[in-house]
Amino acid sequence: MALIVHKYGGTSMGSPERIRNVAKRVAKWARAGHQMVVVPSAMSGETNRLLGLASELAPSSAKTSYYRELDMLAATGEQASSALLAIALQAEGMDAISYAGWQVPVRTDSAFTKARIESIDDVRVRKDLDAGRVVIITGFQGIDPEGHVTTLGRGGSDTSAVAVAAAMKADECLIYTDVDGVYTTDPRVVPAAKRLGTVSFEEMLEMASLGSKVLQIRSVEFAGKYKVPMRVLSSFTPWDIDLAEEAKSGTLITFEEDEKMEKAVVSGIAFNRGEAKISVLGVPDTPGIAAGILGPVADANIEVDVIIQNISKDGKTDFSFTVNQGDYQRALELLRDKVAPALGASEVVGNTNIAKVSIVGIGMRSHVGVASTMFRALSQEGVNIQMISTSEIKTSVVIDEKYLELAVRALHTAFGLDKSE
Amino acid sequence: MALIVHKYGGTSMGSPERIRNVAKRVAKWARAGHQMVVVPSAMSGETNRLLGLASELAPSSAKTSYYRELDMLAATGEQASSALLAIALQAEGMDAISYAGWQVPVRTDSAFTKARIESIDDVRVRKDLDAGRVVIITGFQGIDPEGHVTTLGRGGSDTSAVAVAAAMKADECLIYTDVDGVYTTDPRVVPAAKRLGTVSFEEMLEMASLGSKVLQIRSVEFAGKYKVPMRVLSSFTPWDIDLAEEAKSGTLITFEEDEKMEKAVVSGIAFNRGEAKISVLGVPDTPGIAAGILGPVADANIEVDVIIQNISKDGKTDFSFTVNQGDYQRALELLRDKVAPALGASEVVGNTNIAKVSIVGIGMRSHVGVASTMFRALSQEGVNIQMISTSEIKTSVVIDEKYLELAVRALHTAFGLDKSE
Repeated sequence: MALIVHKYGGTSMGSPERIRNVAKRVAKWARAGHQMVVVPSAMSGETNRLLGLASELAPSSAKTSYYRELDMLAATGEQASSALLAIALQAEGMDAISYAGWQVPVRTDSAFTKARIESIDDVRVRKDLDAGRVVIITGFQGIDPEGHVTTLGRGGSDTSAVAVAAAMKADECLIYTDVDGVYTTDPRVVPAAKRLGTVSFEEMLEMASLGSKVLQIRSVEFAGKYKVPMRVLSSFTPWDIDLAEEAKSGTLITFEEDEKMEKAVVSGIAFNRGEAKISVLGVPDTPGIAAGILGPVADANIEVDVIIQNISKDGKTDFSFTVNQGDYQRALELLRDKVAPALGASEVVGNTNIAKVSIVGIGMRSHVGVASTMFRALSQEGVNIQMISTSEIKTSVVIDEKYLELAVRALHTAFGLDKSE
Repeated sequence: MALIVHKYGGTSMGSPERIRNVAKRVAKWARAGHQMVVVPSAMSGETNRLLGLASELAPSSAKTSYYRELDMLAATGEQASSALLAIALQAEGMDAISYAGWQVPVRTDSAFTKARIESIDDVRVRKDLDAGRVVIITGFQGIDPEGHVTTLGRGGSDTSAVAVAAAMKADECLIYTDVDGVYTTDPRVVPAAKRLGTVSFEEMLEMASLGSKVLQIRSVEFAGKYKVPMRVLSSFTPWDIDLAEEAKSGTLITFEEDEKMEKAVVSGIAFNRGEAKISVLGVPDTPGIAAGILGPVADANIEVDVIIQNISKDGKTDFSFTVNQGDYQRALELLRDKVAPALGASEVVGNTNIAKVSIVGIGMRSHVGVASTMFRALSQEGVNIQMISTSEIKTSVVIDEKYLELAVRALHTAFGLDKSE
C-alpha cells in the first residue's frame, strides 16, 4: 500500500463526464489498496470566466486590495471542482471529502495572485486517509498568515500537488494532463519527437524554465527540494486500463542518475518565442556599467534572462539582454528615457522577432564538445546566433524567430533524438 | 453616522452591470458618512448552475458527506459575487474587502444545506469599518465547529444579513430585493394590493410562515430575537436617488406598535398553495389518538401544519392535517401502510387541491369578531371552509384551491385593504 497523490488539470476536469472519469480512475487506485490524495484544477474555462467578470467591472489595478479580491474570486473555481469530484467519488461508492486550501491548511505568503507555499499541515488529511477516505485538496490556492485566501498563479495546481505530496511524504505524485509525458521537444514542431520514459529532475527544471509548458517550473523546484518522485501522464487513457500499466506510463521525473540516462548527452530541445531582445549601444566601458543598466530594470520588477556584453572598442561597448515580451515596451522606455541619457549611451534598440532555443541534458556535464556540435548544426542550416547562454546542463542560443522550427529540427537530428529507441 | 447593513439578492447581483449599480448605491451610503456592511447573494442562476453540475454527477443522497460537498460547492457562488462586488466598489474609489463566512467567522451548527447561525464574531469586521472600509460578507454560508463550510438553505442570505446586523448592533438592516416592499397581499392576485409603510415584526413573521415569499422566515425570527430594525426595499430604483428618500422607502419591519398600526385590524392576506391535506377516517376515538397518528409522521421528519379532529360519532372520529406537497406522497404511504392498520382506522384519504388563506393583523388582539367577518366574507362568495386554524394575530382557513384568488380578493375587500391610503 502506497500513499499516492493525483493531480488533474482543467481539461481533465472540464465536464461532468470527465469528472466522472477522474472519479472512476481514482477509485480504481483506491480499490487497489492505495491511500489517495487528489488535487484538481478548476474546470477548464472557469478561471477565465471568473476573471473576465472582474475585468468587466474594473480596469486592472496595482493595489494589493484588488489582487486580494481576484484571489477570493479565482479560488472558487477549484473549490467547486473539488466538491464535484468528491460527489462523483461518493457516487462511485467511495468515501471522499474535499478541502479548500484554508481548511488543510495550505499556508502561503501574502503575494496575492502569485503566492508561494510555505507549509502544509498534514494532520487533518492523514486522519481522513486513515479512516479510509479519498481526500481532495483544491489546487492553486492557500491561506496567508492574516487568513486571506491566496492563489499561486497560473498552473499553480501542479505546485499544490507536489507540495501536498512532499508534506504527506507520498510515494509518488502523478500529474495527469492532456499530454502523455515529456517529449524530446514539442511534437508539433518536430513530428519525430519522442516521449522520454524518464527525465532527471535537473533536466526537467531546465526544460520548464526554458519554455516547455508541461509542468509549472515551481512544481519542479518543489519536487527537487523535497525529492518527490513525480510522473507526468495522460488523463485521456481509458480509466479502466490495467493499473500496473498506467503506473509505468508517461514520464517519470527522477532523482537517480541511472545508466540509461547517462547515455543520452542531450535529452531534449526546448524553445521559447516569448522573449524580446534589447541592446544598449555605445555605452562607455567603465566598471559598474552592467549594474548601471540592469539595476533600474530590476527595480522596475522586470526579469532579465540572457545577458551579453560585447568586447570593448574605443572605450565603448554594447550591452544586450532579453526580457519577456510583456515587459518589453516598459523596459525599452525606461532605458531610452532614463538609463541611456544618464550613462551616455548612444542608442537603445530592441527586437521582438527573436526566439530562444536550448539543448538540455544531464550528460553535458561529462561530455565535451556538445556546444560546438550545436553551433555547427545551426551554422550548416545558415542560422545566425545572436546570443549564447550556458549552464552546466544546457546551452541556449537566441536566434531570429523565423529560423525557430528549422533550428529545433536540426538540433533534434544532430543530437540523435530522431532515432527510434 | 450610522452602521448600516445592506443585503442584495441574486437578481440585484445578476450581471456585472447590476453589480456596478449595487456598488454605486453602497458607495453613496458610505460617502454620506455611514459605516457599511454588505451581504450579497450569489449571482442569479449561479447556485442552480452549480447544483445542476452536482446532479449530473450523482443522484441525490441522504448521506451527510454528500450534503457537506453540496455546501462546499454552493458556497462558491457567494464568495465569487462578494469578491466581484469588492472589485466594483474599489473601482468606485472605495476601500472595500470581502470575507467568506469562515473568515468572519459566521459560526453555524453542522446541519449541512440548512445550517443555523450560532454566533458571528464582529472583531475583524469592526476593525475594517473603523479603518474606513466597506465590508462585504458572503450571504448564505458559515463554518461549523469542525471547520466545514455550511450553507443556510435557500434564501439564507436574508438570515445572514440580519444576523450580521444583530452581531454588529447595526442601526438598520436594509434588504434590497426585486419588489419594493411588503404588500397587503400578492399584487398579482389582487391588483389593488398596497405596499405597507410599516409592518410589525409579529405580523411579518406570520406572513413569512404563511407563504409570503418576500423574506425568509428565519431572517424575521432572527430580527425579532435581536430587535434588528429591518427594511425591505427595491434594488431597481436608480442608484443615485436621494439617500433620505431611499432610506424611507419600502416597508419597515418595526418593533414598536404605533398608533397608526393599531388602526388596521388586518394588515395583510397571506396564502399558500404548497400544502396538501390528509385525513385518517374512522379512527377509534381513544386518548392518545393524535400522538398515534402524528408521532410516526414526525419520526419520518415530515412537518405538519394545520391539524383538526372532528367530533366523535359512535366512538369513531376523523383526523385531518396538512403537510407540504413535497412530503405528501411519503406521508400518505406511511399512514396507509403502517399507521392506519395499527390504529384500526377505516380509510386514509388525501387531497392536493387545497390552498391555505390567512388574515394577519396585530390589531386582531384587541378586536373581536374578526374571524367571523372572515367567515362571512368567504360564505358570501360560496367558498366552503375545510379547516380552520387560529393564533393571536392570524386566522387561517384551508379551502378548495380553485377558490384561492376569489377568497383572497374577497378578504382584501372585506378588511378594507383596497381603499387608497
